[in-house]
Order: sequence, then structure tokens, then C-alpha cells
Amino acid sequence: MKYLPNCLTLANLISGLMSIYCTMNGQLDLAAVFIFLGASFDSVDGRAARRVGNSSEFGKELDSLADMVTFGTAPMVMLLTTEGSKAIKLIAAMIFLACAAIRLARFNSEQSSLNVFIGIPVPAAALLSLLAFFMINRVIVYYILVIGLGFLMISSIRLPNFKNHPDQKES
Amino acid sequence: MKYLPNCLTLANLISGLMSIYCTMNGQLDLAAVFIFLGASFDSVDGRAARRVGNSSEFGKELDSLADMVTFGTAPMVMLLTTEGSKAIKLIAAMIFLACAAIRLARFNSEQSSLNVFIGIPVPAAALLSLLAFFMINRVIVYYILVIGLGFLMISSIRLPNFKNHPDQKES
Repeated sequence: MKYLPNCLTLANLISGLMSIYCTMNGQLDLAAVFIFLGASFDSVDGRAARRVGNSSEFGKELDSLADMVTFGTAPMVMLLTTEGSKAIKLIAAMIFLACAAIRLARFNSEQSSLNVFIGIPVPAAALLSLLAFFMINRVIVYYILVIGLGFLMISSIRLPNFKNHPDQKES
Repeated sequence: MKYLPNCLTLANLISGLMSIYCTMNGQLDLAAVFIFLGASFDSVDGRAARRVGNSSEFGKELDSLADMVTFGTAPMVMLLTTEGSKAIKLIAAMIFLACAAIRLARFNSEQSSLNVFIGIPVPAAALLSLLAFFMINRVIVYYILVIGLGFLMISSIRLPNFKNHPDQKES
């Protein structure tokens, strides 16, 4: 039981890798399913850590690294398969990925314990980018939306945190 | 000048993304070049931070997140393009990526300041995996080597740290 939280975090990381693999094989629906699966593991690992009384600094670091692959990199690998302008899609992917890294680094270094999210969390931005990937037909609109989601992650917009457990993570 | 170290770290991250993009387009030589480029940025960002007197917790976190993409994910995306058994290559990539995450999380949470590396650093493992990618013809040997490099990252083997500055990073 002691290792369960970190195993769930590693399952999130592996889901991210599987998503990238599916994208490389043209299985975009399955790639999205793996990102959702990663989000499911991500939503329970922190809870599991508190339940087994094993909320460690190591666990938090591992969680951010897994989030960087599953919610930062994997959705941008999907974006890179689209047919639009090579330059614009690369810029969109770079901005989203850099903003995800800045947000995750800021969260880990500042250890915010507020009951609100400041800026939108990385997994939420990733899931919204997936929605845009499948719903928006004009790629340029999708790229602009992804850039917008990037900046929203590092913005100072305050959103309610419904998971307002006292030591709740806020990545 | 204040933001130079973090800009170098983001350049490392962007190199990782560019490597993945090149791999997706079949440009494997260029993909490797971008990982080397990322390693160059990675080798100077910590030095730049100390020179401008801006060695922050945020910078260290950002560095690990960039390393996770450039030295964890990008070389494994290259591995996934090989022609070998689907199951074995996925297992090799999963083990390498999980070990890279464990090592980076451990480094950040334990803040080791020893003058030796315990286990091989993530960028070194990534560069050795590239060497194997281009030099070894039998994919199964390459996969086994990648798994070995994964375990070496989290092993307790001690290697001299030639960059033994007192507050030198050791990712």
C-alpha cells in the first residue's frame, strides 16, 4: 500500500507515453483516451497518498514530471499531426509546452495552499485542448485556442478549487 | 540577464519538442541533433544562474521538467520508431521513462550536494541511448541496453562528478 500513490503517478506517466505512441501510429482517438486515462490516475494519486499517509516531496515531484509528459507533451504531439502551417503549429506547441512547464515549476516551488486555482491547471488545459482538437475544424482557430490555453495556465485568473482539501495538490 | 538561465532551460525544453517533431517526420539524425542541442543548453543554464546570482528553486524545477521531455521522452520517441517487437520496445521505453522520472524526482526532493553522481545522470543516459540507437544494428540488443541505462539511472553506482562546484546541480 505504501507504494500505491507513486505507482498511480507512474501509471499516469505510462499513459502519456502510450498516448504519444498511438499518435505516432495515427490512432488519434486512442491517443486521447490515454490522456483521459492519465487524468484519471492523476486525480486519485494525491488522494491515495493522503489515505496511506505517504504525501512525500518525492511524490509531488514525480507527479509534476508525469503531468509534463501526459498533459504537456502528449497533447502537443497530437497537435503536431495536424495539417496546418508548420511554423504556426510549432509555435503553438512551444508556447503551450513552455507555459505548462512554467506552471508546474511554479506550483512545486511556491507550494501554494490556497483554496483557489490561480490560472487553469495543466490537466484541465490538456483536456480542453483535446476537446478543441476533435471539435474545431479550422486548424488556425485550434492553434490560437491552444496558445490561449497556454497563457491561461500562467495567468493570474482565479478559479474555485472544488477539491479544497487542506493539503490538496494544485498542479 | 536575470531571466537568461530560465530562457536557456526553456531552450532545452523546445529542443526536446523539436526532436520529437523531427522523429515524427522521419528525420532521425536531426532529432538526435536537437537532443544534443538540448544537452548543450542544459549544461550552461545552471552555470548562468550562478553567474547572474539567480539560482532559484523555480529554476531547478523548470530544469527537471525540461530534462524529462528532452532526455526522457524524446529519445524514447526515437526508440518507438524502430522495427522490433511492439511489446518489447514499449516495455523498454516505459522502463527508461519511469526511471528518468524517479531519478529527476529524487534529485529534486533530496537536493543531494555530493561531489559524486549516484547512478548515471538523465542527460548522460539519453546521450548513451542515442549512441546505441545509431551504432547497434540488432534492435533487441539496443532495447536491452536502454533498459539497462534506465536501471543505471536509479542505481546506487557512484561516478565522479567532474562539475564539482559546491552548489552544482546533479540531475
